[in-house]
This record gives sequence, structure tokens and C-alpha cells, in this order.
Amino acid sequence: MRPVHVAGIGKTAFGALAGRSLKDLAVEAITACLSDAGKSPSDAEAVYVGNFDAPSFTGQNHLAPFIAGAAGIHGVPATRFEAACASGGSALFHAMQAVASGSYNNVLVCGVEKMTSQTTARVAQILAGAGDAELESNIGATFPAIFAMIARRHMHQYGTTREHLAAVAVKNHYNASLNPHAHLKKVITLEQALAGKPVAEPFTIYDCSLVSDGAAAVWISSEPAAIRIAACAQASGPVSLADKTDITTLEATRLAAAKAYKQAGIAASDIDIAEVHDCFTIAELIAMEDLGFIEKGGSGPWVASGATGINGSLPVNTSGGLKAKGHPIGATGVAQICDLILQMRGEAGPRQVAKANTALAQNLGGSGATSVVTILQRN
Amino acid sequence: MRPVHVAGIGKTAFGALAGRSLKDLAVEAITACLSDAGKSPSDAEAVYVGNFDAPSFTGQNHLAPFIAGAAGIHGVPATRFEAACASGGSALFHAMQAVASGSYNNVLVCGVEKMTSQTTARVAQILAGAGDAELESNIGATFPAIFAMIARRHMHQYGTTREHLAAVAVKNHYNASLNPHAHLKKVITLEQALAGKPVAEPFTIYDCSLVSDGAAAVWISSEPAAIRIAACAQASGPVSLADKTDITTLEATRLAAAKAYKQAGIAASDIDIAEVHDCFTIAELIAMEDLGFIEKGGSGPWVASGATGINGSLPVNTSGGLKAKGHPIGATGVAQICDLILQMRGEAGPRQVAKANTALAQNLGGSGATSVVTILQRN
Repeated sequence: MRPVHVAGIGKTAFGALAGRSLKDLAVEAITACLSDAGKSPSDAEAVYVGNFDAPSFTGQNHLAPFIAGAAGIHGVPATRFEAACASGGSALFHAMQAVASGSYNNVLVCGVEKMTSQTTARVAQILAGAGDAELESNIGATFPAIFAMIARRHMHQYGTTREHLAAVAVKNHYNASLNPHAHLKKVITLEQALAGKPVAEPFTIYDCSLVSDGAAAVWISSEPAAIRIAACAQASGPVSLADKTDITTLEATRLAAAKAYKQAGIAASDIDIAEVHDCFTIAELIAMEDLGFIEKGGSGPWVASGATGINGSLPVNTSGGLKAKGHPIGATGVAQICDLILQMRGEAGPRQVAKANTALAQNLGGSGATSVVTILQRN
Repeated sequence: MRPVHVAGIGKTAFGALAGRSLKDLAVEAITACLSDAGKSPSDAEAVYVGNFDAPSFTGQNHLAPFIAGAAGIHGVPATRFEAACASGGSALFHAMQAVASGSYNNVLVCGVEKMTSQTTARVAQILAGAGDAELESNIGATFPAIFAMIARRHMHQYGTTREHLAAVAVKNHYNASLNPHAHLKKVITLEQALAGKPVAEPFTIYDCSLVSDGAAAVWISSEPAAIRIAACAQASGPVSLADKTDITTLEATRLAAAKAYKQAGIAASDIDIAEVHDCFTIAELIAMEDLGFIEKGGSGPWVASGATGINGSLPVNTSGGLKAKGHPIGATGVAQICDLILQMRGEAGPRQVAKANTALAQNLGGSGATSVVTILQRN
């Protein structure tokens, strides 16, 4: 396996982007990425598209050649990768593997989702497909309910409080207010987060990520560049909550993290900055534990202490995270890489952290059936 | 790139399988494949699932870990690949590439689709997503209409007749009658094919492939086995018919075929047997030309002469093809490999051909936006 680099990034703003089509968003991100990488469409030897469910959201399937063609990339293999909310991360994982093993020298990865043209009820139904339709969603266990159960168990087992959960929301809303590409730029207080409209006990609306439109792209290359993908690992776990032995930890994240740390030859303590999959506030807390940043059960007080703020010892989701930057599903795993690279380049503006030499992204699918962990390093 | 082998195959019967779920079908195919390969679930280092649109057909998304887990495969990367009707071929292409380049030694590929639980109108709508939704399907240009236009043009340009098209249907219906796993086992005459219920001029119902349920699996390995994947290539072309300069040829198939022949170091004339993507009768004729088996425009008389029958000079779709074996979309590209291997092993029963040392599969997505060409050789 040879070194693999991220030679360019491109991203649209995230939000409820009425009048912007899925194709339009993907082409904007790809065009920005090509320009940033100094490449032309004909340089792409393959296209990896991360997308959860464009057919249901927009009616358009066969998405990879559809997007590639619109961006001027013709002839080469163009494939859509689906791994629920980890679709973007999975596309990246396969692209990284193909370049690392010598199958290609230059490939394009694009994550995209257009969600806001559907009604809220239909969006909930589409999202529920990422769980076990028969055992969970068909009987009402949609993701807010599933992650609420996970949160309740974490509270019961480790003394995690609603204030700990709300601290994640307050931090990520603040961070997003500094990100011009974020969906929500509304700073909130702990009191506001706690007093939000109830969704599923113990969650208020402020514990839940957003339904967004958006796209992100990265150029993966074997050619030397400033930032290297030191590791990228994908792992699986049970789709249904009922099949897990302990719902306060996600096996797929632990497996992927262990592989990624080994591949990069580093430990969790070497990470300077992370973007993690905060689809719900509890998911960010559990990610802190599963990624080895803090001991099992200790994430609540640690995050509430400010340790993961922009000026903390380990800044997490400085982009605003899925919570406030937004969560156009297929785009999320690719956008995490773009946001980390802005920090690594020192181009993150008012949310810039002091040190970003080694960065980690964690992208989760469903309630943990897929997890992708990527580690970036400055050369 | 090192040699890659198909060490095992497994397949369900294809048909309108009421009472059989998508998960159930996938697990049956995987279990048969594991048994044929002499492997256990824990031997799989990754799982590649080819599926077009389970979310729309069944409500279940996040399909790869869902299926892998049900088959007893845990922890490893499990990803769904979507490339319209070439989803199975695309999963195979990426699996082959990962094993050839040394990323894995043993992986499982499973193609699956459960289509018949939806109404015919809804199925047509879901399938239309593989074209350009905005420019084609939303204004009524569904696939029968699109391929009918292609057929009309081929007839105009090369003198191809309705009898030539019908000859494909007659052959494939006969072949399927010899295949216990086929969806339709009804032998038809040329007169019956021509007098079928009209669908889209010049097509009758006998020019169109079936809506089926089914699954197929193959075990891909770097370990020595009797049958080697000599080449596997995926290529892209325009999604919309309006973007093609000549609609009587599919650029993606020509590109993929050229790459595959080069990779295998052989010519079209070296192929003993083929399974090609006869979603409509015209697609089989055009495939003959794009794969280099016959000169451009000459496919109609050639196929009608019996050259591609079981006892012809180049047997094509001895399984019965999509036309009569059935077309559970995601399964098709994987099932083609299973059917060729039955012939290569001499296990094809009454449809066994005399010589099957070098075999070719062609799996098409949409009206040619994706094509995957695979070449198998006996060691």
C-alpha cells in the first residue's frame, strides 16, 4: 500500500436550498474540488459517489454516471456507494483503497444529498430505511426513538445528564455560527437547548441533527500533496438495536478506529482535531468513548467541561457538526474531510484551531451498522 | 495485479416469489455460495452487495450490513453498490479489483432484488429512475420507450427486422425452458413473439425482460481455483439518450469490452460462450455488435441464423437471459457469472454447450450509462 493524498476539496453551502437540484449541487462541489486540486475532469480515472437515497428523495437513481457526466467526466467507472449515513465515508474508503493499492492514481469522490424537497413525514420514512425496516421502523422505532433509547441507557449506566447532551448542542451551534457554509448559524444557550420542543425523551429538537441539502467532493491522488490519508477503515455492526449486546457503545466504530489507528501507527492521544458523526447529541458523546478520546462512560462531564471546544484540548466538530452545519446524508462523510482539511491548512477563519497536524473523521451509518474512521496527516 | 478466482457460486430460483423476503433470498444465495466454495461466513474479508433500489421496492436500505449480518458475516466492510441494472456487475468489478490489487484475499459478492411486491405501475416508476428523471422518465420516456427508439433506429439504419428481434426472444425462451432456476419456462414460436401484446412499437411483450425476485452470490478469492476472472472492466456513457451521438451503439459497452479484452489478452473471437444484458431484444443484438462478435449492423440476420443458439458457433444467454430466466435487477450481473460457471464446469444439464473454456458476461445499466464486461477462463 502506497501513500495516498487529498489533493483538493470542494463543498457547497449546506441548507434548505430551494431551487438547487441534486445535480446542480454535486457539480458545484466537483467544480470547486477540481479547481482546488488543479485538475480537469479528464484527469479522473474513476468516480466514487456517496449517496443514501436520491431515488426516494428526488426520483433520480443511477446517480454516479448522472453526476459524473454533468461534471464533464466521461467513460470511466462511476459508481454509487450506499452505507446509510456513512455513504460518503464508504465512497472515500473504497476510493482510498483503490488508489493505495495502485488500481488508480487519481480519483474523485463526491458525496451529495437533496432532502428538503420532501415533506417531513416522508423524510422520516426514507431515513427509517437505514434501520431494520421489519423490526424497527415499521413498528415506529425511527432514529430519534432509537438514539433516545441509547441516550437513556447511557444516562442510566454512567450518570450522563441532559445537561451533558445539551452541551454538545451548544458547542456545535456556536461552532456553526462561525462557519459560512453551515445550515444553522444560531447560537443557543444551555437553557434554550434544554427547553427545546420535545422529540423523544430525553431529546429536544436541539439534540437532533438537521435535514439538509448539500454536496462535498475530494480529490484522492497518489501524487505528493500537503495532506495524506494516513488511514481509512470501514467496519460493520448489527443493523437492529435488538441485536446489540451493549447499546451504549458502537462496535463498528471501535473496530474501524482500532484498524485506523493501527494503519496510521498512532494512538487516540495523537489526534489534534476531529469531526464526528453527531446525528444526535448522544452519538457525539459515545463517539468520544468509542474512538478512545475518553474512558467509557466519561464523555458527558468531559465534553461539558469544554475539552472539545475550539480552544479545548481536542476540538471536535469545529464545523458545527451534523447538528448545526447540517446533514445532507451522502455528503456528510466527505464534508467532514473537507472541514478537517480547512483546519489543517489554516483556512478555517474564526473557528481556526491552534494545532491541526493529525485529524480524525468518524462517519456513522444507521445506529451503528456501518462506521468509517479516517485519519489525515500533514506531510 | 495478481490472478483472481471465482471459488464458489450460489443462486436462488428467479421468479415472482411471494412470501420470500429480500433478506431471505440473499441469505439463500450466500449460504449456497459458501457451501460451494467450502468457506464459512468468517472467511469473508469484505461484502459487496449489488442492488438497484431495495428502499423503493421493499423499504429496506443500508442493505449490505443488513444482508451480511443475516448471513452470519460480522464486523467487516459491507457496502452496497448501485449502478442501475449493472449494480451486480459493478459490485463484482470492485470486488475483483480489491482482490487483484491485494487489499483482500477472500470476499463475497451478492446481488439481490425483490421487485414483485410492488404494483406494475410503481415498478415502472422505480425503474425509470435509472434514466434521466428530468429529461426522460418525468415526461413519459420509460425504458421500453427508450429501447424501442433504439430498435427503430437500428431497423432504419441497418435493415434489422421485427423477426430478428423476435428471434432473440424465441431463443431465450427456449433456453430458459431448460433452466430449472428460470422465471419463465414457456417455449414460444416466432409467430407468438410477433403477435404478442404491443408494448412500445416495435416491441411486443416478448421483446421485454421480466420483473423478478431473486439473488445470486459468488466467492472471489486470490487462492487457486478452477476458474479465473481474466478481466473485469466497468465503463460509463451518457445517462440520457439525447446525449448520445449514435443510439444504435452503446459507448460504455465498447469501452468496457476493449479494456476487458486487453486485460485478458484475448480477442472477441476467443469467446466460447456469453451471457449478455438482454433487457430488451434489441439490447442483445446491439451487444453482439458492441462486444465485437459480429460487424456493426449485422447482428439481426446473424442471431436469426441460429449462430447464438446452444448448438451455435457462439452460444449466448443459454440461461434464458433477462428475457426468460428473469431480471431481479441487482442479482442479474452476479447471476450471469453463476450461469457461465455452470457451463464452464459442465454442470448446465440439458442446456450444456460443447465448449466453455472462455466466457464473457456483459451487464448494462440504464440505456448504457454503465456497462460491465467480465471474462472468465478455465485454468
